[in-house]
Amino acid sequence: MSDWLQRSFSLKARPRGFHLVTDEILKQLPELARCRVGLLQLFIQHTSASLTLNENADPTVRTDFESHFNVMVPEGAAHYRHTYEGPDDMPAHLKASLLGNSLILPVGQGRLQLGTWQGIYLGEHRDQGGSRHLVATLQGDFN
Amino acid sequence: MSDWLQRSFSLKARPRGFHLVTDEILKQLPELARCRVGLLQLFIQHTSASLTLNENADPTVRTDFESHFNVMVPEGAAHYRHTYEGPDDMPAHLKASLLGNSLILPVGQGRLQLGTWQGIYLGEHRDQGGSRHLVATLQGDFN
Amino acid sequence: MSDWLQRSFSLKARPRGFHLVTDEILKQLPELARCRVGLLQLFIQHTSASLTLNENADPTVRTDFESHFNVMVPEGAAHYRHTYEGPDDMPAHLKASLLGNSLILPVGQGRLQLGTWQGIYLGEHRDQGGSRHLVATLQGDFN
Repeated sequence: MSDWLQRSFSLKARPRGFHLVTDEILKQLPELARCRVGLLQLFIQHTSASLTLNENADPTVRTDFESHFNVMVPEGAAHYRHTYEGPDDMPAHLKASLLGNSLILPVGQGRLQLGTWQGIYLGEHRDQGGSRHLVATLQGDFN
Repeated sequence: MSDWLQRSFSLKARPRGFHLVTDEILKQLPELARCRVGLLQLFIQHTSASLTLNENADPTVRTDFESHFNVMVPEGAAHYRHTYEGPDDMPAHLKASLLGNSLILPVGQGRLQLGTWQGIYLGEHRDQGGSRHLVATLQGDFN
Repeated sequence: MSDWLQRSFSLKARPRGFHLVTDEILKQLPELARCRVGLLQLFIQHTSASLTLNENADPTVRTDFESHFNVMVPEGAAHYRHTYEGPDDMPAHLKASLLGNSLILPVGQGRLQLGTWQGIYLGEHRDQGGSRHLVATLQGDFN
């Protein structure tokens, strides 16, 4: 039976950096197990945090992401005009758009059809971002 | 009732830079108000303009986007070979792929489920990009 | 009739760089011709290769993409800690997340609703990436 599921939930607050959140998200979506084929969208309702897929094994990949993005999108660049929310704010907006604020993941046979090494990263780009709100929308054929 | 809506339309020509286009796009999609749950894709049929979500309030965020991308993807880099369409052309292609040419937005209870501060940006990366063509595809359960 | 199609397939191995793969992908999806309206997701099950849309005409656009990303995400940066898989590995992870690992393409009247100049690029970011696995998920109304 073709159906839609839409659910809002929050991810716990995390420090600035990149965090593997696959398990925390999947716990919110037990109905995935009954989805024969479909697509799951994960959407973050913020402009200073991001969602991306990358390596789920070696944690130094996540620390290298943080290092690289801090070089590529530096704090305190002379051309920033949007500075009143602190030095981490404008870089956070830029990182959010470079990485993107949503993921679409294929679902098949009751699970995400990720590659072996793929995990979901939360990019927390603020120093004190707090809890982050997501909307998950799953559409598919369900058993 | 589950249904599809697909509609092509154009955004008016804008100068190079980042522009908030949420309202101009929503005017094209009155059927959203009848969509109980669904997903809206916005797809730009160009390789030198982009769509992204970011802060809808302070306009200096948009000018800082333009400044930052001009530094990160400079005109006139020595390694460019694709130069015959002008100095703004190859950077426009790169910016388009960095930011992306489509958005997927969750729809619930007749409206986009955006965060409070999220708006839709058109990234116009050419000096004279002209009017830009979009395809909107909305799928969902409608009242 | 509304229906889902989900299919896994591989793209042949290619050298590092950006490659136009529209035709190779479409050959895998003959059912597109019967799709009146829908959305196609292409999802790459890897963390060191990417999918993006860009210019399908002049091949120097693709070589300029490779040149630019090698400058923007350099090999051998002093801050990388994830180095044991070789100098091309950490930059490949970063490029994959900057460009993205999936595309959603609108389908109408039996074909992709791409702009005239849009083609699908595979970003192969490893020196020896090998064959790359994709999951295509097509949902739509079919004749």
